[in-house]
Formats: sequence, structure tokens, C-alpha cells
Amino acid sequence: MRVARFSTGGDPRYGIVDDDELVVLNGDPMFVGYDPTGERVPLADARLLAPVIPRSKVVCVGLNYAEHRADLKGVDAPENPLIFLKPNTAVIGPGDPIRIPPVEGRIVHEGELVVVIGRIAKQVREADWADYVFGYTIGNDVSARDQMFADGQWARAKGYDTFAPLGPWIETELDPDGLEIRTFVDGEPRRHGNTHDLIHKVPELIAYISDVWTLLPGDVIMTGTPSGLGGFVHGQTVDIEIDGIGTLSNPALSRDERPA
Amino acid sequence: MRVARFSTGGDPRYGIVDDDELVVLNGDPMFVGYDPTGERVPLADARLLAPVIPRSKVVCVGLNYAEHRADLKGVDAPENPLIFLKPNTAVIGPGDPIRIPPVEGRIVHEGELVVVIGRIAKQVREADWADYVFGYTIGNDVSARDQMFADGQWARAKGYDTFAPLGPWIETELDPDGLEIRTFVDGEPRRHGNTHDLIHKVPELIAYISDVWTLLPGDVIMTGTPSGLGGFVHGQTVDIEIDGIGTLSNPALSRDERPA
Repeated sequence: MRVARFSTGGDPRYGIVDDDELVVLNGDPMFVGYDPTGERVPLADARLLAPVIPRSKVVCVGLNYAEHRADLKGVDAPENPLIFLKPNTAVIGPGDPIRIPPVEGRIVHEGELVVVIGRIAKQVREADWADYVFGYTIGNDVSARDQMFADGQWARAKGYDTFAPLGPWIETELDPDGLEIRTFVDGEPRRHGNTHDLIHKVPELIAYISDVWTLLPGDVIMTGTPSGLGGFVHGQTVDIEIDGIGTLSNPALSRDERPA
Repeated sequence: MRVARFSTGGDPRYGIVDDDELVVLNGDPMFVGYDPTGERVPLADARLLAPVIPRSKVVCVGLNYAEHRADLKGVDAPENPLIFLKPNTAVIGPGDPIRIPPVEGRIVHEGELVVVIGRIAKQVREADWADYVFGYTIGNDVSARDQMFADGQWARAKGYDTFAPLGPWIETELDPDGLEIRTFVDGEPRRHGNTHDLIHKVPELIAYISDVWTLLPGDVIMTGTPSGLGGFVHGQTVDIEIDGIGTLSNPALSRDERPA
């Protein structure tokens, strides 16, 4: 089932994607379950929004594919998952522009499988991981590469407003292992990987992270990006495709540029 | 004026500290202004809670006193403020136990002046900084020192549940410059500094941080810790005093230990 958050002009609402329509729901199904209103909205008439705005944490996992580690020379990886945070103010939805700040160096895309947590998760046993997952979406861990090295800490370089595109919806029935991830810039292939090659897979991540931080419903885990060429500039569009979910597409604009 | 968040057994409420009483307010004054209910509660009958739970960001500033930089050999500091994030799930209130996780190495206290943001702040000019401040409280940027170095990224080492004590209340009328900060462990002095010696002071921090991240009402900025000896162990109590605010006191317990 694909759960979307959308607007037709007013407040955000939730719906289930049914072919080219949305089955409109009462409230957020993560908190109130699936309760259709009876209304249906054509997908073409809805603006899809970020499918979740975390109340607490956008958790990211760094260096979680071996080939991507090799790309990032000079960054040491610990044996445990390397976890860090983006602020929820960085989250944008499908189609929203990534705003490139006026900083030195390359801005890079990092297309990633994203786990959406559905229940309070604290010290979860690895065997129980699936009980805490609401579903999966696509994320782009946008990063200002030079600022990562300038600060040492990545919170700024990866946390600018608009640097966490999520969407287009949450797929609730999916095996997170063995999914192809492909990233394109203006249609040209740039990164490619398969979640089967994650060094730390989703069950381990949920156990590890929930032992450090209590995860709240709506928190997301961005599982890491595979290898490839990451740079993009304003005026280009980044598309990320994941098997069984769909495509997250975002144009890039400079900070104050108006959409065409 | 001192704004406290408290409970007398039921839901959290807000009040203004008036000597040994709380003037109870309708709702959160940050969002609805000061609207007394007419009720007064003796401070002794109230349990003070964390004065704010950020909906978005606990921003921390690293290496913001010259002497503390010298203490942390091997960590390079950029010229700009070094900013990073703790999750809001780390926030606890005055008197709540800091829970020491089962990790290698020292756990350290970092007593800090904390700025509480009162309005949406985006690309604020330094001259306008004061318009965005709701008030000031005391914070403890608790850190698992060895894990900072093990990961390189500090989010885990500084983000464990309970690693962001805040309180005891928010002082809304205060000049943040020239305040003495003293930290004690079981009554013995351990760290001492004065906010006059901050390398990046509050106006600069608000301008710099709001240029990177949109700050939301209730977001907090922990401004950095001065020099001193930081270690503490379970069974000890950490007290942090700041001129004009008061004292934030938290006992330390191991993860599953019950309070005495």
C-alpha cells in the first residue's frame, strides 16, 4: 500500500494511492489507522508533499556501501554504523526545489532507501525490527561536500534547508533487501547500487539506532548512498528511483531563484 | 521573568516563577502570550520539567571557548561556529537522571548557556538578533568522549537519551554577555567560565545558524562549554550555575538503575 501526504490547496491530507487516484483518509494513518473518508482525488489534481515530517529525528547513516566508502577518501569509518542527524527543517517533498546555498565547492545528491518508523522504538531486538517499520520511501541526503570537510561535523553541510527531499509516498509492503537504487541528473545515470550491498542492513540499523536514541513514530532512517558521481548544479533535476517505491524527483535552484 | 514548565501530577503546564510560587498560565506563553489562570501553585508542590521541548532542533556549538579548545587536543576548529545537532529525545528536565549508557570511556558534563528561540528565524541579520530570543536557560551538553572520537561524527556520543538536560526555567530578561558559568560535581567545582569569553557570541550565533537552518520557536542553541575537568560517573550529581538564571541539577544513574 502506498500512503501519500498531499494537498489540493488547503491543509495537508493523507491518502492511499490507487492507480491514478488517491483514496482520501481521515487523519494520519500512522496514528489513527486507515479510515477512508469516501472521497477520491485524481493524483493529477493533488500536489504530493513530503510523506512524513519527523517530529524528532532524520537519522542518516554514513558510508554504508563499500564502494561509496572508497569514493570518500580521507573519511574513516567505524565498525559500527556511522549515524548522524539532519534537522526536520531540511525536509521537502517531491517536486520541491533543492535550494543551493552560497557556499564553496560541490553540492552532491545521495539517493537512499529511507525507513519510516511507525512506533516508539527503544532498544529494539534485531529480530523484532519489522514491528517498528511503518514503511519505506526515497530520500536524497543532499550534501555540501566541502563544508563536510571544513567543519569535520556534517550537520551543517547536510542540514541546510531543503537538503532532505523525501517521497513520493510511503510504501508499506516491501522487503528492504535487494532493491535497486538509481540516481539520474537530467536523465543521465549517476549513481547505482542495490540495498543488498548495504554494510549495515535495515534490521541491524533499527536495533543499533534504537539502542542509542529512542525513535518516535515518523522518525526516518536514511540508510546510506551507493557509489557514483554526485555533483549537480542549479537548473538541473535529480531523480532517484527505487524498485517497488517509485521515483523522487527534485529540481535544483539557487537560494533565491524563482521556479521557471 | 522566569517561565517554568511544570507538573503537579497531570499534564505539563506553564507558570511564571514568583518567589516560592508559580503563577499558572493558560497554554505555552511562547505561542499564546502571558495569560494567567488566576491559580498559584507553591514551587515546592510542583515538579519542574524541561522548560522547552524543541519541535525541531537542539543546536549545539562546539569549541566556543578558547581554553576548552585547548583541552580537546586533536579536534580542529573551523573559523566559523562549529554547529551540530542533538535529537530532542535527549532532552530531560531539572532533577531528572542522566542515564549513562554502557559504552567505553568517560562521560563528561558540558555546562552551557542556552538560548531559547521564540520566533521563526531565517537569515536573521546580526543586528536583529534580540527579536528572535524568547529567553535563556541552562543546558548540559553531556558527551561520551571516546565515542566522539570513535565515530568522528558527534551525533551519537552527544545524543543518547537524557544527554541534554535543560532548565530549571527560562529567564526572559537577561543580557547573555558577561555571565559566570560554574559546574560542580557533588559540590566540587569542575568547570568555570564567563560568556564574555565566547568566541562566537549570541548575536553572531543567531545570524550564522539562521542562515544555515530555519530556526523554529522552541528551538534551542547550546552556546558551548568553558574549560575544566568534565568527567562524572553514576551516583554523582552535576550542578550547573549561571548568573541570573539559577542552577540546573541532575543526578547520574546507569542505564537501568532505579533512583534511590
